[in-house]
Amino acid sequence: MGQSEQGLFISFEGPEGAGKSTQIGHLVRRLEEMDLPHTITREPGGTPLGTRVRDVLLDPELTIDPLSEFLLYSASRAQLVTNVIRPALGRAQVVVCDRYADSSLAYQGFGRGLNAGLLRGITAAATGGLWPHLTVLLDLDPVIGLERAARRGQPDRLERADLGFHQRLRQGFLKLAEAEPKRFLVLDATLAETELGKRIWEAVQSRLPVSKI
Amino acid sequence: MGQSEQGLFISFEGPEGAGKSTQIGHLVRRLEEMDLPHTITREPGGTPLGTRVRDVLLDPELTIDPLSEFLLYSASRAQLVTNVIRPALGRAQVVVCDRYADSSLAYQGFGRGLNAGLLRGITAAATGGLWPHLTVLLDLDPVIGLERAARRGQPDRLERADLGFHQRLRQGFLKLAEAEPKRFLVLDATLAETELGKRIWEAVQSRLPVSKI
Repeated sequence: MGQSEQGLFISFEGPEGAGKSTQIGHLVRRLEEMDLPHTITREPGGTPLGTRVRDVLLDPELTIDPLSEFLLYSASRAQLVTNVIRPALGRAQVVVCDRYADSSLAYQGFGRGLNAGLLRGITAAATGGLWPHLTVLLDLDPVIGLERAARRGQPDRLERADLGFHQRLRQGFLKLAEAEPKRFLVLDATLAETELGKRIWEAVQSRLPVSKI
Repeated sequence: MGQSEQGLFISFEGPEGAGKSTQIGHLVRRLEEMDLPHTITREPGGTPLGTRVRDVLLDPELTIDPLSEFLLYSASRAQLVTNVIRPALGRAQVVVCDRYADSSLAYQGFGRGLNAGLLRGITAAATGGLWPHLTVLLDLDPVIGLERAARRGQPDRLERADLGFHQRLRQGFLKLAEAEPKRFLVLDATLAETELGKRIWEAVQSRLPVSKI
């Protein structure tokens, strides 16, 4: 991202049921308490186009090939970066995104077996090379994650996939985190909600521009 | 395509109003008269996923960035190639497709100014390198094309774009054809309907496997 951009871009990653939404909620309350301008968004979605693409991606009636799936996520992502994330960063906001490109690398790459170089090349084009300053990975044993998701009601397409897939997914996220230890904050999602919130807030604070603390 | 595939893949390209649908209809009648097994499809669309993506792409209420637009077309195309075109070619059918990847190179590349190398790289991934054996380009002055389209009713997103765009588009299609003269058959779309049908049929016949003639 350009030197002139003063914002902070934070993504949350992890499997279904890891508590991303809960922790994003806690983070947003902290940002509000500090009067820090922020934008909350999610993938897929976040724009009128993205919402339509989300409906297609999560429709359990549709069969979608892995590469098509990845291209749909990328289409939603390109629109989100151009119309929401970059403009918010340009206004020096904190941008909090529920899933970003790491999800594609994990789900379609490690999970579905698509070539990592291909995914990274298309992602670079779709995002213009924009990556978060901080990525919070809520790591969770897939068996626990699926139990949590099932308790919340009807499982969607992703949740219905098999356990082997979810295990590859977990390992994929951990490998992505290992490769970029400065960007990733890996947390055990079974920790207490308040403890997770505290650790996430510490990591966010340490990355805020000095002028904002 | 693999050596074992015996089918013939034909695409029709050109601007709105050039008469692609009419000529596809004539071609299909000839194939039926000859009892040649065939599959007729179109882009975007042709699969349940593609139909949903088509609805998104052609929705005049949505604003779609050029790169997102290209990625959506590519998602529809990947699904179509895997689930419809390759299987039909594998059954030695004649596949007739109303628009294919040349449309993306012309519309999003020459028309919208996206980088040609990027478009070709993603297209190679989305199609697995599958290109038609014959591409019929119905070439038309954009002024005439827009008049024809307007006469058919409400213009869609593509039709409402400005004349400069349509002129870049025409030149783009002609450049694609110049670069691959063996694959392309370029026809003046203002020729009589029956004359066009005759020339297209000659081109198709010359490419049919000997066993089918």
